[in-house]
Amino acid sequence: MTQQKATNIVWHAGHVTRADREKIHGHKGVLLWLTGLSASGKSTIAIRVEQILTERGHFAYVLDGDNVRHGLNSNLGFSPEDRTENIRRVGEVGRLFVDAGAVVLTAFISPYRADRDKVRARFDAGDFIEVYVNAPLEVCEQRDPKGLYKKAREGKIPEFTGISAPYEAPEKPEIVLDTAAEDAEACARRLVAILEERGVVPRA
Amino acid sequence: MTQQKATNIVWHAGHVTRADREKIHGHKGVLLWLTGLSASGKSTIAIRVEQILTERGHFAYVLDGDNVRHGLNSNLGFSPEDRTENIRRVGEVGRLFVDAGAVVLTAFISPYRADRDKVRARFDAGDFIEVYVNAPLEVCEQRDPKGLYKKAREGKIPEFTGISAPYEAPEKPEIVLDTAAEDAEACARRLVAILEERGVVPRA
Repeated sequence: MTQQKATNIVWHAGHVTRADREKIHGHKGVLLWLTGLSASGKSTIAIRVEQILTERGHFAYVLDGDNVRHGLNSNLGFSPEDRTENIRRVGEVGRLFVDAGAVVLTAFISPYRADRDKVRARFDAGDFIEVYVNAPLEVCEQRDPKGLYKKAREGKIPEFTGISAPYEAPEKPEIVLDTAAEDAEACARRLVAILEERGVVPRA
Repeated sequence: MTQQKATNIVWHAGHVTRADREKIHGHKGVLLWLTGLSASGKSTIAIRVEQILTERGHFAYVLDGDNVRHGLNSNLGFSPEDRTENIRRVGEVGRLFVDAGAVVLTAFISPYRADRDKVRARFDAGDFIEVYVNAPLEVCEQRDPKGLYKKAREGKIPEFTGISAPYEAPEKPEIVLDTAAEDAEACARRLVAILEERGVVPRA
């Protein structure tokens, strides 16, 4: 209606939106929060989902001990207080990646229910999917790929979840994976199928 | 040579690499670290670059006070110690985004040289590009879009960079932008041209 007179204004300073980036990526952003005991299979499953989605040309990203504990959270230990802050930061980085339009998978023991619920509360409904990677302690201890359970039993690692520190299982996780009954490949395929069903990623 | 007998092994557990994701995005990952006084134009320029790259279908992401200070770094204040930790965390999140193949732009005052240099040291050569958004204090104070300089002069904001807290200009930034002489649009275009010259993004 009114003539535009300010010729020096050629754009507005709006942030690119999540929707803009989702359009570019060809799918929606979401966080899959994998929780479970050490050696339950969290990282293996997360990395396999990352592979499957990447092969389809999607943008998937795994946050795990390898890339977070040695970097962002290198100044945190394993005390209850530090575990809480560790999970809070992972959740906040997850929010940034979801905002960036990624399918983010986090693979952390995240033993405290309250910590996970606080992360959930930071997301819009549907953006946070809790995946309980459930394997009996005996099974995890038998796998013990890094010999951590053995060391924990010998008292060489203090505050080890399942041995000398608690694990609080999710009460209402969106998904439960039983890695004692189902192999990692099948679990990963199941997660991808759920992303398809929810319309997060297109069906292959 | 040897026949594969283990039919249950259908994949290996290798992380998807940065190169894999860069291929999907169609460009390389890099961090543009914008540093300068409050109101020097950091966020405006960063957001404009994000817009230009997104319009080209690229994956760009801005980390700034809006999405970091209220989230990941909400438990940090503005003391020298907290500023240092703030910048460290931003740098580490930047590393994750570069690993994810993004063109990441950070827009933080980041007043301490040592803090910025510590972040630089965490990146491979070429992945960290320091951009000094240089505008004289008088110009920034005159702009004062949020009235912060006024409050700082009145003593209502303690430890305000340029007024009651130091700003240590970069000694060897890769790029200097003079926002008193050049408008934000021109500065943004210049950054995009530099990304093209370096082969980070394809020429438009």
